[in-house]
Amino acid sequence: MNEDQLDLCRRLAGQLRVDSIRCSTSAGSGHPTSSLSAADLMAVLLVGHLCYDWGQPHSPANDHLIFSKGHASPLLYSMYRAVGVVDEDELVNTYRRLGARLAGHPTPALPWVDVATGSLGQGLPDGVGIALAGKYLDKLPYHVWVLCGDSETAEGSIWEALDKASYYKLGNLTAIVDINRLGQRGPTELQWDVERYAARVEAFGARAIVVDGHDLAAIDAALGQVRDGTDQPTVILARTIKAKGVPELEDKNGWHGKALPAEMAERAIAALGGPTSLRVTTPSPSAGPAVPAITADPGAAVVLPGYELGEKVATRVAFGAAIAALAVRPEVVVLDGEVGNSTHAEEFAKVCPERYFEMFIAEQQLVASAVGVAVRGYIPFASTFAVFFSRAYDFIRMAAISRANIRLVGSHAGVEIGEDGPSQMALEDLAALRAVYGSIVLYPADAVCAAKLTLTMADTDGIVYLRTTRGAYPVIYPAEETFLIGGSKLHHAGPEDQVALIGAGVTLHECLAAAEELAGLGIKARVIDAYSVKPIDRAALVEACKVTGSRLVVVEDHYPEGGLGSAVLEALANASVPPLRIAHLAVQGLPTSGRPAELLDAAGISSRHIVAAAQGLAEQ
Amino acid sequence: MNEDQLDLCRRLAGQLRVDSIRCSTSAGSGHPTSSLSAADLMAVLLVGHLCYDWGQPHSPANDHLIFSKGHASPLLYSMYRAVGVVDEDELVNTYRRLGARLAGHPTPALPWVDVATGSLGQGLPDGVGIALAGKYLDKLPYHVWVLCGDSETAEGSIWEALDKASYYKLGNLTAIVDINRLGQRGPTELQWDVERYAARVEAFGARAIVVDGHDLAAIDAALGQVRDGTDQPTVILARTIKAKGVPELEDKNGWHGKALPAEMAERAIAALGGPTSLRVTTPSPSAGPAVPAITADPGAAVVLPGYELGEKVATRVAFGAAIAALAVRPEVVVLDGEVGNSTHAEEFAKVCPERYFEMFIAEQQLVASAVGVAVRGYIPFASTFAVFFSRAYDFIRMAAISRANIRLVGSHAGVEIGEDGPSQMALEDLAALRAVYGSIVLYPADAVCAAKLTLTMADTDGIVYLRTTRGAYPVIYPAEETFLIGGSKLHHAGPEDQVALIGAGVTLHECLAAAEELAGLGIKARVIDAYSVKPIDRAALVEACKVTGSRLVVVEDHYPEGGLGSAVLEALANASVPPLRIAHLAVQGLPTSGRPAELLDAAGISSRHIVAAAQGLAEQ
Repeated sequence: MNEDQLDLCRRLAGQLRVDSIRCSTSAGSGHPTSSLSAADLMAVLLVGHLCYDWGQPHSPANDHLIFSKGHASPLLYSMYRAVGVVDEDELVNTYRRLGARLAGHPTPALPWVDVATGSLGQGLPDGVGIALAGKYLDKLPYHVWVLCGDSETAEGSIWEALDKASYYKLGNLTAIVDINRLGQRGPTELQWDVERYAARVEAFGARAIVVDGHDLAAIDAALGQVRDGTDQPTVILARTIKAKGVPELEDKNGWHGKALPAEMAERAIAALGGPTSLRVTTPSPSAGPAVPAITADPGAAVVLPGYELGEKVATRVAFGAAIAALAVRPEVVVLDGEVGNSTHAEEFAKVCPERYFEMFIAEQQLVASAVGVAVRGYIPFASTFAVFFSRAYDFIRMAAISRANIRLVGSHAGVEIGEDGPSQMALEDLAALRAVYGSIVLYPADAVCAAKLTLTMADTDGIVYLRTTRGAYPVIYPAEETFLIGGSKLHHAGPEDQVALIGAGVTLHECLAAAEELAGLGIKARVIDAYSVKPIDRAALVEACKVTGSRLVVVEDHYPEGGLGSAVLEALANASVPPLRIAHLAVQGLPTSGRPAELLDAAGISSRHIVAAAQGLAEQ
Repeated sequence: MNEDQLDLCRRLAGQLRVDSIRCSTSAGSGHPTSSLSAADLMAVLLVGHLCYDWGQPHSPANDHLIFSKGHASPLLYSMYRAVGVVDEDELVNTYRRLGARLAGHPTPALPWVDVATGSLGQGLPDGVGIALAGKYLDKLPYHVWVLCGDSETAEGSIWEALDKASYYKLGNLTAIVDINRLGQRGPTELQWDVERYAARVEAFGARAIVVDGHDLAAIDAALGQVRDGTDQPTVILARTIKAKGVPELEDKNGWHGKALPAEMAERAIAALGGPTSLRVTTPSPSAGPAVPAITADPGAAVVLPGYELGEKVATRVAFGAAIAALAVRPEVVVLDGEVGNSTHAEEFAKVCPERYFEMFIAEQQLVASAVGVAVRGYIPFASTFAVFFSRAYDFIRMAAISRANIRLVGSHAGVEIGEDGPSQMALEDLAALRAVYGSIVLYPADAVCAAKLTLTMADTDGIVYLRTTRGAYPVIYPAEETFLIGGSKLHHAGPEDQVALIGAGVTLHECLAAAEELAGLGIKARVIDAYSVKPIDRAALVEACKVTGSRLVVVEDHYPEGGLGSAVLEALANASVPPLRIAHLAVQGLPTSGRPAELLDAAGISSRHIVAAAQGLAEQ
């Protein structure tokens, strides 16, 4: 940058500070001091380094900018004003107001925001996902910039992210860490010890550049290095001062997350030179049309594997076959947490290694990578053991706020997994995933259903979760069966059914066995395959209630709270049906190791328990 | 060690290998190859360094040994046989069988196991918690040893743990990393690049010691260094060979998590010298009585803060006052995730800084530290924003398997938090926490209830979760009111009530306002304060149904699935009550920023929505 440009940066930084103060003081809340520390960094980025066509926020040529320290939203929105996409009125008068797109923490309600942030330590992992897409899928020269806070480096997810960034040689990723020394309630662990930060960053395989975060020329020099063709990710470690620019608050504890009172704000704004209306132009993305290397082909003919009725196939195996078949669609991407030979995601890797990303045992980064890849329009499937999505629950929750379209496939659910014991058993996942905003929860009982749902998931938006089973169970559906989200399948149904057995996944097989045994006992039982746990097929449940006098046995390989049983109760809460007479069979105790069938029985969810429960209801 | 001792180690390592193969082959599953790589390390540890009185597993003098790589349970259980606490029959014939205490992954069903492992990356964080207790609470010289896998160093939680271990100068902690180069499905990220491991470990403030993990003398020398009085945690980076001792499997991919077939096992056992029955004695814990520096005083008089009826006090503030009052009990420990000024946990720090541990923004380590401290019998309260416990959900789940007694306090729940927006709003926490095995979920509406429940939590075992509210609301209970777990409070109840309004926390106040408005409209409504969400007060719900013809309005500041609404439905599923006519008001859409009252209203859970719903029901 020449002197003129540096002067522009200086004036822009002043405006960003003034605007950060104005909008937060007007709102009466927010994080101005956390914005002020990073204003110089962002001014230089905007003037000289962020290649972005603001008129085309979804252009594949654009760089990406993520505020991992999402609480610095006053700064981000002030940048949007400076480039002319948010006007002064919106900035100053709508920030943090009801329904405003300028929310307390950034969300993709704004077209320039890729991912929602505000849960610290997530923006950088998400950025790794976008950079993966840039380097290996799009193969475009855009750069991913992530502004991080220093406090959030205490989150392990930051180190998962840097580890993967260096493993995948993401030279197209730059984290800028705003080391302002102060967290919410006091000094950070490392305070201004930038050398220790640098040692950590370098040990994790990134290039560390230490800089005075208020020296515009130094910042420019640092940012100018990152596109030098290296395949190392870069971490700019910027030593900054919290509240920089407002002397009475600079480097002072006790001012995190507090708007300046009106009088103090006025004083500060005046000292900063008063409000201005600078309009800056960011560098253009690389000249010429930016065409991603991959073109989606949603119409590609996917040939699913065929299965014989009665053949024993694990649903995780069927998922593997189906996801491999989906490889003909160039937009499908698979990520796994170093258990691809268990989830069977590796079947995709065998046919399409170039769109398979091994995330090793780092489930937070696994989900974040999926989110990042989805930002660029790809269709990511992320798989691991069902239970280990609990490691990434905060990331899944945030993905919902990001309105990300990601598919999660969890194998080895419930006590059915057997000998490995409770640490490996997903017994809370249906509850946890159902509670995620806008989620879809699927739990197929056979290979045909699993394969078809895998296909359906590819074209289903939102957080879509597929729970698969470890063991092999008989195929019960013919190849031509269809499985709608929100649907169910009915077995052994007749107009005189006395009881309905409702299962999903492994318990559906127990229900089918129970229905046969009940038939021998003279009790007519229909079986509902609730493969779509959320949304659940309310109509089928209502119909079953009407026929059976609301005699229902709900059976799930899950703890009693919040799973299939709750889904059934919620669906029927206001239905015009006879009073419910429900037996809910779920895993009540803490399981041990054992053989799958033994554990299903010990948990009280095997066919003999279903028979007994149904008998009890039928006699009522 | 002298030559005799090293020879003993050599023979012991052989026995550990043989026994690891025997038990897993007999079980037909398990992880023998992951056990074999660490057999030499553990043999030397047992013979020379682990100070443990096996007859007194709960002696405060004992060292602690955690298998963070819990899948190496064959090795751990073989060690138990070698010290004489598990016999050959139990080892060989019960491992992984139904109900056996020798489960697939270790659990505290065994008295020598402190914490359940099997979810990778958790044993070391738990160990940090025990070491914190050792150094700062017990002030005893015991050492905490953690055997880690190399694959699990991909988990961010490992780095959260080392970061906190160095921050707190835990020289009493040693991690031994079994770098066998192979994960479940292939090579690890860093394979045998021990220098890069060392750089990472040192950058995070620990002392790294690189060793050949099969050189007994070198291992002994390394382990011998760790008690040298340093206040740095130590990480032994042991280069090992997976399946070491079984030449045909050594360093071979494709053998993770597979028992050796019988014939191969026989061959391997013979080559290793056949089964032996060595009995080794571990070093004794330090001589003299080991008396922890802190003696519990459960009877200490806790003086809770007093509140005036009608006074506006946030429940998080009441928690802060109550936890500070609990500081008179020396066994109470508080940990927070760098938001103690928001959760108000810092009130404890003000009166008792020596039992307050700042975990910074590392929620996984926050919960793990609580688990570790609980291992030593302390009563830990861990607090952060309610929403950020989602970051530690896998740790909470595992804590339940560990049968750990931990108290979690989450502030800033629901849309009520206002301007910060959805990233900071816990809207899935009731569902997620209810689904945890044996958990208790509490959500007080006023300061008196919050303070008293805080007191009750201290003496309640299991995973106990308290959800507190950001804003200040009127005190509604007199100081003498009591709040039992599993109870509820009834307001405005009469024999002619037409409808029951069920709320908890912030929505209880909306229900109370609605009841008054309904009274003005001539509709009699009782209000139930369901402060105990799990277990819920079923009797009160049944009674309300009987009086009102089961006309219930359930109102919660939470997404619709799995929360208070589900708890009510589950409780009433089989009750002898009139058919339910239930209106469930919950947060249906994705919230924005806004003022708390605006957001409650926009979400459809404010008093006017309750009034409308109640009117609708009353007319039915």
